[in-house]
Amino acid sequence: MTNAFETSPLYPIANPRSIAFLGASNSLATMGTNILRPIMMFGYTGKIYPVHRSETEVQGLTAYRSVMDLPEIPDLAFIVLPTHIVCQALEECGKKGIRSAVIVSAGFGEIGGEGKQLQHELLAIARKYDIRFMGPNCIGVVNPHRQFNATIMPYETVNGFIGIASQSGSFVTQMFEFLKRFGLGFSTGFSLGNEADLDMVDALAYLGACPHTKVIALYVESIRRGREFIDVARSVTPHKPVVAFYVGGTEGGKRACLSHTGALAGSDKLYDGVFRQSGIIRARSIEEMFDFCFALGASPLPKGNRVVIQTHSGGPGAAAADSCSRAGVTLPSLSRESKDRLAEFMPHTASSANPVDITYNKRPLDYFSAFPKILLEDDNTDILLAYYLVSERSVRRVLLRMDMPEDEINTLARQLIDQQCDSIAGLLENYKKPIIGYSFHTRDNLFVRGLQDRNVPIMPSPERAGRAAGALVMYRDLRNKILGSEPSD
Amino acid sequence: MTNAFETSPLYPIANPRSIAFLGASNSLATMGTNILRPIMMFGYTGKIYPVHRSETEVQGLTAYRSVMDLPEIPDLAFIVLPTHIVCQALEECGKKGIRSAVIVSAGFGEIGGEGKQLQHELLAIARKYDIRFMGPNCIGVVNPHRQFNATIMPYETVNGFIGIASQSGSFVTQMFEFLKRFGLGFSTGFSLGNEADLDMVDALAYLGACPHTKVIALYVESIRRGREFIDVARSVTPHKPVVAFYVGGTEGGKRACLSHTGALAGSDKLYDGVFRQSGIIRARSIEEMFDFCFALGASPLPKGNRVVIQTHSGGPGAAAADSCSRAGVTLPSLSRESKDRLAEFMPHTASSANPVDITYNKRPLDYFSAFPKILLEDDNTDILLAYYLVSERSVRRVLLRMDMPEDEINTLARQLIDQQCDSIAGLLENYKKPIIGYSFHTRDNLFVRGLQDRNVPIMPSPERAGRAAGALVMYRDLRNKILGSEPSD
Repeated sequence: MTNAFETSPLYPIANPRSIAFLGASNSLATMGTNILRPIMMFGYTGKIYPVHRSETEVQGLTAYRSVMDLPEIPDLAFIVLPTHIVCQALEECGKKGIRSAVIVSAGFGEIGGEGKQLQHELLAIARKYDIRFMGPNCIGVVNPHRQFNATIMPYETVNGFIGIASQSGSFVTQMFEFLKRFGLGFSTGFSLGNEADLDMVDALAYLGACPHTKVIALYVESIRRGREFIDVARSVTPHKPVVAFYVGGTEGGKRACLSHTGALAGSDKLYDGVFRQSGIIRARSIEEMFDFCFALGASPLPKGNRVVIQTHSGGPGAAAADSCSRAGVTLPSLSRESKDRLAEFMPHTASSANPVDITYNKRPLDYFSAFPKILLEDDNTDILLAYYLVSERSVRRVLLRMDMPEDEINTLARQLIDQQCDSIAGLLENYKKPIIGYSFHTRDNLFVRGLQDRNVPIMPSPERAGRAAGALVMYRDLRNKILGSEPSD
Repeated sequence: MTNAFETSPLYPIANPRSIAFLGASNSLATMGTNILRPIMMFGYTGKIYPVHRSETEVQGLTAYRSVMDLPEIPDLAFIVLPTHIVCQALEECGKKGIRSAVIVSAGFGEIGGEGKQLQHELLAIARKYDIRFMGPNCIGVVNPHRQFNATIMPYETVNGFIGIASQSGSFVTQMFEFLKRFGLGFSTGFSLGNEADLDMVDALAYLGACPHTKVIALYVESIRRGREFIDVARSVTPHKPVVAFYVGGTEGGKRACLSHTGALAGSDKLYDGVFRQSGIIRARSIEEMFDFCFALGASPLPKGNRVVIQTHSGGPGAAAADSCSRAGVTLPSLSRESKDRLAEFMPHTASSANPVDITYNKRPLDYFSAFPKILLEDDNTDILLAYYLVSERSVRRVLLRMDMPEDEINTLARQLIDQQCDSIAGLLENYKKPIIGYSFHTRDNLFVRGLQDRNVPIMPSPERAGRAAGALVMYRDLRNKILGSEPSD
C-alpha cells in the first residue's frame, strides 16, 4: 500500500520536496502570485524556485531567469503562465529533467479548436520527456499533512481525513471554508482540470493508498477511462468508502460540463451503473457529498440497516424517520428490556416507540449518557441517530437552579459539556456502532463543536442525518457485494 | 382581507392586548417560567397577569391566586399547567369570560387512551364557553411585529416575512436561530400541537390575510380537514405562495407522526395531490422549505421558466445547471446581442453558453453590475442564478494593487461591497426578474450579508439555488392553473 502510494505519479505533485514556480511575480494582479503566496503562508518547508524573466526576487524569494538556471532538479514544476507560452515552458522543464508538473493555465481542451490542438502538443512534450502532469485548467493541489497548499485560497481548517479528486477547482478550494464549518478538512485535494495526462483514475488510486485519507470524495463531470476507473475503484472501496457527486446526467449539466472541462458526460443511468459496480456511493449535491464523507470517515461499519432515533422533540424525530425510510434503512422497535429501562427516565408524555421521543426532560444531560447507552445496548440498534439540541444556555439554566455564582456557572457549564461530549465519544468507542447526531445549532454551539471535534458526525438537519445513515448502510451493502461475503468483523 | 385577519380566532392569540399566564412561577425549573421570561424579555407591551396559587409576585409581576381575581378579562389565557389540572383551569378561564387560549401542556391526544379522553373534555369545556384554543401539546406563538414571543426560545432575529404554521414546536422555535443565519425571520409563527380546536386550516387563513406575511411555511404531519384545507389554500395561493413540508408519507414518518401528535398520516401520493390541487409547493426538507420561502417571499413572479446562470467557476455553474434541469426549468441560450456585449468583458477562456462562465476576471466587481445587467436585459432570461463568491479579501486584493494605505483600503472595501450590493438590489428592482444568488460563503461574508439584507435570496449551494429557481417556476405554474389564465402583470 505505502509503496503504491509513494510510487504514484501524483506523489511528487502532492509531496514535492522542491518546486519550480513559473508565473508568479511581484504584482498581486497575477494568478500565479495568488497561488505562490498561500504556499508560502501555509508554511511549506521545501524549496521554492520562482522563475521570472526579469525579476531577481519574487515575493521575497530568489528568482531565476530560466528553469535551466535552477541549482537543482526540482520535484515539481508549477505552471501558471499565459496559454501561448506553456508548451515552451514545459519543454524547458523537460530538458532540465523535471518529471512532474501542475499546469494551472487555461485555454486548452476546454475551449475546443486551437485549444484542443495546444493540449495535444502539451501532452506530446510531456511524453517526450517522461513528465506526468496534472491539468491544464486546474487550480492546483493541497496536502495539509505536508503544510502544502498550492491553490488560490488560504487553507485555514484542520488536517483532515477526506481526500478529494475534483474536476472543478472550486470544489476543492471553496470547500476549505465549508469544511471548517464542520470541523473537517482535507487529507489531500487534487483539482484535476482537463485531465490531459493524470486523471480521476490516478487520483483515486493515490487517495486509496494515502494513509491520511479515510474516505474519498469525487466531483465528476465525466470519467474518461471507464474500465480502469471501475477496476481501481473496486480495489479501493472494500477498505475505504468513496462518494461521488456527478453533474453530467441532465441536459443542462451535460452542456455545462462540455464548456467547463471539455468533458463528454454520459447519462445518469450509465453513471449510476458505473458507481454501483465500483462500490461507490452517489451523492446528489456538494453538501451531501461532504455529509456522507463525514459519516463514512468517522463511523465504524454498521452491522445491519436498523436505525434507532433518539429525540427530545417530535418534529425533528418524525422528519428524521421519514428521511430514514426514504433512504432505505429500517426503523426497528426497541426490545422489551430497553423499553423498561427507558421508562425509568421518561415522563408520561414521552414515547419509547422509534423515534424514542423523550419530550421535555429536566435533566438534559441524560441525553448524552443514560439514553444513548440504553439504545446502543439494544440488539435491534445498528445505527443511532440522535437529535442534539442542548445549548450552553440550557445547561446554564439547569445550573442556575442550584443557586451558584455566575462565573462558576460558566466554567461548570463548559466542563459539563466537555464531559458529555466525552461520554458520547466513549459510547462510540465502546459499542462500535455508528452514532450520527443532528442539530439546528452550528459549530458555534459548544456541544456541536465538542462532538464534531471528537469525530462524531453532527449533521445540520434531520433529513441530512437520515440520508447519512442511508449512506452508511449503502456502503456496507456495496462493500459486501464486492467482497462477495459478509465482513469478518 | 384585513377584516378576515382581525376577526380570525387566531388574532387574539397572536396579538393579545393582555394575557392570563397559568403555570409560571419563581423557579426556573418549570416550563411555564421558561415561556414567560421570553415574553417579558422581548418587550411585550400588553399586560401580563401571572396566576399562581401561593406566590404574590411571579418573575417580578403581580401574581393572582385565581383567574377569577384578575382585574380585567384578558384577551388570552396561556396555559402551561400539569396535565391533570388543565381542564379545570380552562373551565375557570371560561367562567371569567376569556375567549382565547393557548394550551402548551402535553399528555392529551398524542398519548392515546385516557389522554384522548382528556382532550375530548378540554374541547367540551371550550365549546361550552365559546373559547377557541391552540394546542394542547404545542409550544406557543410568536409575532415579532408585536414584540410578542410566547415560546421557550428567545427571538433574536429580524421581524420577517415568513409566516409558519407547524405541527411541531421545534420547527418554530429552533428556526429562530436557523433563519437568523440567512437574515430572515418570521412574520408570525404558530405551534399547533394536537389541533384539538384551532388547526392548520385556521392558521393558513390567518397567515393568508396577515399583512406582514409574504410567504407561508407549513410543517405537516397530517391534515385533519382536507376539503376545508384545499378551499382555504386555493384562496390564498394565487396571491401568496405557500410551501409545505410533509413527513408522514413513509412507513417511518407515519409511525413517528402517530406518537408525536396522534396524527393519522396519509400516503405521499395523497398529499402530493392535495398540495398540487391547493397550489402549494412541497419541500423535501426543513432547509428546503425555508430556501423556497426566501426565494418566493423575496422575488417577483417570473415571466417564464428560463433560467440563465452566471458563474465565475465551472463546477458550481455545472452543478447549478444540473440541478436546474432536475427541477424542471429550462436553460436557454443567450441572444446573439448578449453574447456580443459579454465578449467585451470576458477573457478567451470564458464561455457565453449558459452557464455564462466568466472564469478568472480581473475586475471582480463587474460581477455585480455589468454582467448581470446584460443577462437580465436578455429576453431569454426569466430568472437569473448567480454564483457570488467575492470575499472582502479579494476586494482588498484588488485595492492593494492601487497602492493605498491599509486603513483606507478597509473602509473602501466595505463601501465598494455596499455599492455592489445596492447595484444588485437596483437590478432586481429595475428588471423585475428574480435574482437568486448562491455562495459557499455564509452571512459572515459582507457580500452575502449585504445582499440578503437587501432581500436578495442567497442560497448556500448550487443545488439549493437550482431547486429554489424550480420553486419559483412551480409557483408560477400552480398559480396560473388556479387562476385559470395567465397572470395580468
